[in-house]
Amino acid sequence: MPKIEVDYRDYFRAVAEALRGAGMLLVSVDRAGRPNAMTIGWAALGPVWGRPAFMAMVRPSRYTYGLIEESGDFTVNLLPKELARVLDFCGSRSGRNVDKFAAQGLTPVPGRKTKSPTVEQAVLSLECRVVGKCDLTSEGLDPDVDRSSYPRGDYHRLYFGEILAVYADPELVGK
Amino acid sequence: MPKIEVDYRDYFRAVAEALRGAGMLLVSVDRAGRPNAMTIGWAALGPVWGRPAFMAMVRPSRYTYGLIEESGDFTVNLLPKELARVLDFCGSRSGRNVDKFAAQGLTPVPGRKTKSPTVEQAVLSLECRVVGKCDLTSEGLDPDVDRSSYPRGDYHRLYFGEILAVYADPELVGK
Repeated sequence: MPKIEVDYRDYFRAVAEALRGAGMLLVSVDRAGRPNAMTIGWAALGPVWGRPAFMAMVRPSRYTYGLIEESGDFTVNLLPKELARVLDFCGSRSGRNVDKFAAQGLTPVPGRKTKSPTVEQAVLSLECRVVGKCDLTSEGLDPDVDRSSYPRGDYHRLYFGEILAVYADPELVGK
Repeated sequence: MPKIEVDYRDYFRAVAEALRGAGMLLVSVDRAGRPNAMTIGWAALGPVWGRPAFMAMVRPSRYTYGLIEESGDFTVNLLPKELARVLDFCGSRSGRNVDKFAAQGLTPVPGRKTKSPTVEQAVLSLECRVVGKCDLTSEGLDPDVDRSSYPRGDYHRLYFGEILAVYADPELVGK
């Protein structure tokens, strides 16, 4: 697909709708260059420290966690609606046990600014470098959130990803 | 001004541009009901824990910090461009020493869902309840960010504000 550089601010609504819907693919990479994809539904975007930021949340138990800690970057990818099955798959398997890219026929594309690749099939991709992180704990949480989202105490690490590149196939976003 | 309920996702661009420009007013309130306004330029928005969230950053040294800790809520207000002087003022004074609402002729409007009021003069207001927080530390930060944004080690507390109400005068946003 031909993709052009775009301004992330023009795609907030598409991103927010995708996150609330089938999700987006957060892609990271191991030292050997093998990519992994995790489905995410929670995130926030905006200017932080004067930089455009994508705030992603990853639980320490996830395979993705170790990869991001090691590489220091990740990408976020919006898939077309017909690939919702990929999001189901990538949200219910661990990259420790399966090569999700191979299993789902995803094609990694080398990141322009990140070690982590993007996804050829995506209609919008954001490349992000980790510039900050902080860890959630039970104390800071509303009891309802704590109960419903952290029944096993597996609190998220929040990653502040500086958005280094964003590209899209504008006609296909939201399709 | 007549304001109507709106979807925050339709106003992301306006919010992101205001934050990067003159800023927005983060309003909190003390136990006696006295409001305070702080100018902010860094924030992120998106769905977190299945709730629309405004992530605000407040340094513990700020007067606002104690107010939010006490009340558990805040509002975020977008002012029309002709009130840029208000943002300058509220970004350079402490509410410990001055009643910024009185000094700048701001009119507090009781929150519909929050103890913290909104600002009559705003063209867009978001009412947020704190449902999570986490504290930044030096360890998690990129050295450039640490040096440039935290020379005095006054690391932000990040507040996850669930957006409970959003209203705007749509014709005036961005004017």
